[in-house]
Amino acid sequence: MFLGKVIGSVWATQKESGMENLKLMVVQPVDWNGRENGQTVIAADRIGAGIGEQVIVSRGTPARILFGSNSVPIDAAIVGIVDSFEVPGATEGEG
Amino acid sequence: MFLGKVIGSVWATQKESGMENLKLMVVQPVDWNGRENGQTVIAADRIGAGIGEQVIVSRGTPARILFGSNSVPIDAAIVGIVDSFEVPGATEGEG
Amino acid sequence: MFLGKVIGSVWATQKESGMENLKLMVVQPVDWNGRENGQTVIAADRIGAGIGEQVIVSRGTPARILFGSNSVPIDAAIVGIVDSFEVPGATEGEG
Amino acid sequence: MFLGKVIGSVWATQKESGMENLKLMVVQPVDWNGRENGQTVIAADRIGAGIGEQVIVSRGTPARILFGSNSVPIDAAIVGIVDSFEVPGATEGEG
Amino acid sequence: MFLGKVIGSVWATQKESGMENLKLMVVQPVDWNGRENGQTVIAADRIGAGIGEQVIVSRGTPARILFGSNSVPIDAAIVGIVDSFEVPGATEGEG
Repeated sequence: MFLGKVIGSVWATQKESGMENLKLMVVQPVDWNGRENGQTVIAADRIGAGIGEQVIVSRGTPARILFGSNSVPIDAAIVGIVDSFEVPGATEGEG
Repeated sequence: MFLGKVIGSVWATQKESGMENLKLMVVQPVDWNGRENGQTVIAADRIGAGIGEQVIVSRGTPARILFGSNSVPIDAAIVGIVDSFEVPGATEGEG
Repeated sequence: MFLGKVIGSVWATQKESGMENLKLMVVQPVDWNGRENGQTVIAADRIGAGIGEQVIVSRGTPARILFGSNSVPIDAAIVGIVDSFEVPGATEGEG
Repeated sequence: MFLGKVIGSVWATQKESGMENLKLMVVQPVDWNGRENGQTVIAADRIGAGIGEQVIVSRGTPARILFGSNSVPIDAAIVGIVDSFEVPGATEGEG
Repeated sequence: MFLGKVIGSVWATQKESGMENLKLMVVQPVDWNGRENGQTVIAADRIGAGIGEQVIVSRGTPARILFGSNSVPIDAAIVGIVDSFEVPGATEGEG
């Protein structure tokens, strides 16, 4: 998984089957000091992550498995909202 | 998933089983200001994305799952055509 | 998938089960003007792609699925030989 | 798999189903001389890796498979704590 | 798959279930002239690749499938020892 910051959301009316009723958030990967760290990812969110929150994002089939046997073609999902972290050299973390 | 812009299409007559009747689009990953952002991807399209449209692309097995148990060896698919997005610092988005 | 050009082939006598009778080609990823674009990939080929031809390569489990339930541990396969493409700004494409 | 060094941990209260009771460690990929080598990864740990230890990290579905048929959406796991390694040109390794 | 050169091995006593009795080799990706080409990968080896040999490495679930339905969390495996290759511009290849 990677650490990211929710920076926006995106909408699509015309979409593949399985993409209905999904909230799609734009997540900016960040390092443990909050600095941008690579390209944004569009991730499904089912846990109510808000703009500005730091989140944990999982990618690939492990993200898709949240939707069980349904044919949901997502390859990234927010799997946790960060409460805190301890990483030496980083600002003491609060999500 | 990543944000991309449809910039072309590609045809192959000689191909693997499972690749018949697939529309293959060339997608340029872009950032939220529309600037090119990495190498193009060839993605299957079943929702009628047109040249110049901004789309959401899923990769890997989650893209392939759209084809169920059929042996379709695609590793990228357009899963949504972007209507709009809200990302601070980006041009207010319209797909 | 990505666009590539077949530039060679590779042989292995000592190999894992499931790798028997596979033709392994060396594919150079290229952009739509034919310029090299990243590191080469070793891909299985079942459709007879020849040296110098432009091909579409799929990666990961979607490539492996071509071999059904057999334990074939390949993570890349040539899934189409490019006939033509239309990408603005690129040389009008012929595979 | 890649070689990494455990540098911290991260906590999330609000999280996806399947993320309960997981220890999430922050792993810095390192080369065989211990130098940082790319961006940190958040990996599940079930074997008790401690801060400062060198570990082997697996990614994607192979990491997730540790959790069997349960819907655990993790895409990285610590699969071994390094005892030693032999890599010419590297400091003789001790985990 | 990618071309690599076996440069070492790594040992772990404390490890995940499914990692027992696996030989883990350190593989340096190389180009077709033998030059280093990216970061090392830790790959499972069941075919007896020796230090200095050039090998073909498969990654992800296709590598893991070698272990069938067993819960072996490896994401890279050596699938062939290179005998020879033909790539124009490269030294005529011998593994």
